[in-house]
Amino acid sequence: MSAIDFNVIHNDRGCAARSGSLTTPHGRIDTPIFMPVGTQATVKAMTPEELCEVGAQIILANTYHLYIRPGHELVERLGGLHSFMHWDRPILTDSGGFQVFSLGELRKISEDGVRFQSHLDGSYHFISPERAIAIQEALGADIIMCFDECPPYPAEYDYVSRSADLTTRWALRCREAKSRDDQALFGIVQGGMHRDLREKSASELRALDFDGYAIGGLSVGEEKEAMHRVMGYCGPLLPDNKPRYIMGIGAPEDLVEGIYSGFDMFDCVMPTRNARNGMLFTSSGTINIKNASHTEESAPIDEGCGCYVCGNYSRAYLRHLYRSGEILASRLNTWHNLYYYLSLMADARKAISEDRFTQFRQEFYAKRERQPTIDR
Amino acid sequence: MSAIDFNVIHNDRGCAARSGSLTTPHGRIDTPIFMPVGTQATVKAMTPEELCEVGAQIILANTYHLYIRPGHELVERLGGLHSFMHWDRPILTDSGGFQVFSLGELRKISEDGVRFQSHLDGSYHFISPERAIAIQEALGADIIMCFDECPPYPAEYDYVSRSADLTTRWALRCREAKSRDDQALFGIVQGGMHRDLREKSASELRALDFDGYAIGGLSVGEEKEAMHRVMGYCGPLLPDNKPRYIMGIGAPEDLVEGIYSGFDMFDCVMPTRNARNGMLFTSSGTINIKNASHTEESAPIDEGCGCYVCGNYSRAYLRHLYRSGEILASRLNTWHNLYYYLSLMADARKAISEDRFTQFRQEFYAKRERQPTIDR
Repeated sequence: MSAIDFNVIHNDRGCAARSGSLTTPHGRIDTPIFMPVGTQATVKAMTPEELCEVGAQIILANTYHLYIRPGHELVERLGGLHSFMHWDRPILTDSGGFQVFSLGELRKISEDGVRFQSHLDGSYHFISPERAIAIQEALGADIIMCFDECPPYPAEYDYVSRSADLTTRWALRCREAKSRDDQALFGIVQGGMHRDLREKSASELRALDFDGYAIGGLSVGEEKEAMHRVMGYCGPLLPDNKPRYIMGIGAPEDLVEGIYSGFDMFDCVMPTRNARNGMLFTSSGTINIKNASHTEESAPIDEGCGCYVCGNYSRAYLRHLYRSGEILASRLNTWHNLYYYLSLMADARKAISEDRFTQFRQEFYAKRERQPTIDR
Repeated sequence: MSAIDFNVIHNDRGCAARSGSLTTPHGRIDTPIFMPVGTQATVKAMTPEELCEVGAQIILANTYHLYIRPGHELVERLGGLHSFMHWDRPILTDSGGFQVFSLGELRKISEDGVRFQSHLDGSYHFISPERAIAIQEALGADIIMCFDECPPYPAEYDYVSRSADLTTRWALRCREAKSRDDQALFGIVQGGMHRDLREKSASELRALDFDGYAIGGLSVGEEKEAMHRVMGYCGPLLPDNKPRYIMGIGAPEDLVEGIYSGFDMFDCVMPTRNARNGMLFTSSGTINIKNASHTEESAPIDEGCGCYVCGNYSRAYLRHLYRSGEILASRLNTWHNLYYYLSLMADARKAISEDRFTQFRQEFYAKRERQPTIDR
């Protein structure tokens, strides 16, 4: 018995894109879906109510950060992550692997797990697959992730191969360690930019029968073309009847390519982080609100956008807020960008339901006067 | 014809406190009222809708800051301050005087006005009474203030005396310069901590028949006792039938003392600024959310508070957000503090309407285990 129930509602007749419904202990999610990132038990600058208003159905929280501060045991004592952060819809936690491996010199990998130093105070910690599951069980997300090794890019073929094998052995240990019935566990396919390694990893993980499958190790410095190519051949490697998730992706075009390749779930800090830096998404590309060209501009960020920000504020005001270092700048920019991302997902779902995702993808690029990075 | 209409609804039978109704071009205000400060055309960390939700009826914006950035002419071209910042309720702008005088070495005062350097780029500017009015007319607030000199504290009696005289001459020039019929102009009584100077200033300004009267030059470093004493004797110096405003005040007890002395309007950065530093107001005093004692505390800031924050978040979560430097910390803390201030005003109005403001004041101090600074 899985804690989640996934159903493909419609397979687009013209491509691999599909729409679906994912039911979790905290409610139902329409797929394809984008998950805003709430690293420290808050999606930066947003309240939970605002996340609902922009169309968020599930959010991601980072296990590493919450383990370090305030600590998973404290979160558990306060009723778990949903209660702690006042968000009663679905949550997915990553395993902490990606963050731990990002620590570079501060960590050491062995068969058993990873020893690392906190980025906050330098204190020593050890996370094994079993420990990653225990921490995620304490946090209490609806979907939890296997502890994986995310190899750097570029890396030697042999390193990536051994790393993917380690990730498979850790995935088995994660499955064995899992004790809660009300959480779903996803496996993470590794293998870098090597098709044979991705195939081997996917095949071995499929044999372990996870509740869902993710592609890890993308957006680590590779070219867009490589990223989109990996997406393209990885989609078909994963079971049709399970949710497929590309981790840490991406820009709007990456989401479009991911959906086109048959993926259902995405997460990325891009809409929120870029918002705080003044970079805003529109249907015809990005703008930077800092630019002097917006000084006297009474128009909103995007004339065609239906969000609260575009309905009430001029670019001139947003530029003033940004230049003045006002908190409201981060708030309104984040609001708009998340609305943009989640509307893109809603539009994609509609296009799939009408068997026109291929056309949707073409129009997406045409509006931006761009081309897909790879022709397919 | 005044642009505003003020009516005293009820004089408390036990003290000088009164409740009233102030009608402006952008709507009606219940008095006594606290005005959240929106220095740079935003009350820091809050949207206009949230300001309504916490009970804000009028906000204050700072002329100096908006003159410097983005510039009053830009605001005017974008439809005025209400439209620019998406706030359609009343606004009061200060004259810029207080900020300009706070610049210290960067400014030089003459009979004609003040020459000063921008705190942002060191550029030179000159503001005269006429210019202060022109800037405020461009911004378009409902209530604008005379350009006054706010003397430092402590200052020689002779300096304060000459300064108050200058403020009176400038007040006349402001009245003469004013050209818009849809803005009310308030005079500002100066005179430091000297009763005779305050009496002279009030008397001279009353002769100029302003739409309302403010007490300036408080909360400039003096003891609380001195501040409350000045409030106590200044209230009766001002007309009964005009709104009475104490500028830049204050802590909750200062508002209670101000209301007790017959004042109707208050503004201060304290609830918003202190919120961003983790200091929160409760019915039994202040707490600092940073304190380790809140680490595991599942209770809200104030059990008796009806605000969104106290209804949904624990002290433990708020402490986590604060320690993590999250924007949501500033948001939720500000939300609660403004709700506290505006609820205090609503409770005060109710007490006045029931002739029990003296008792309200006693209970206010008793809950905090404190005493009024001066017995009266």
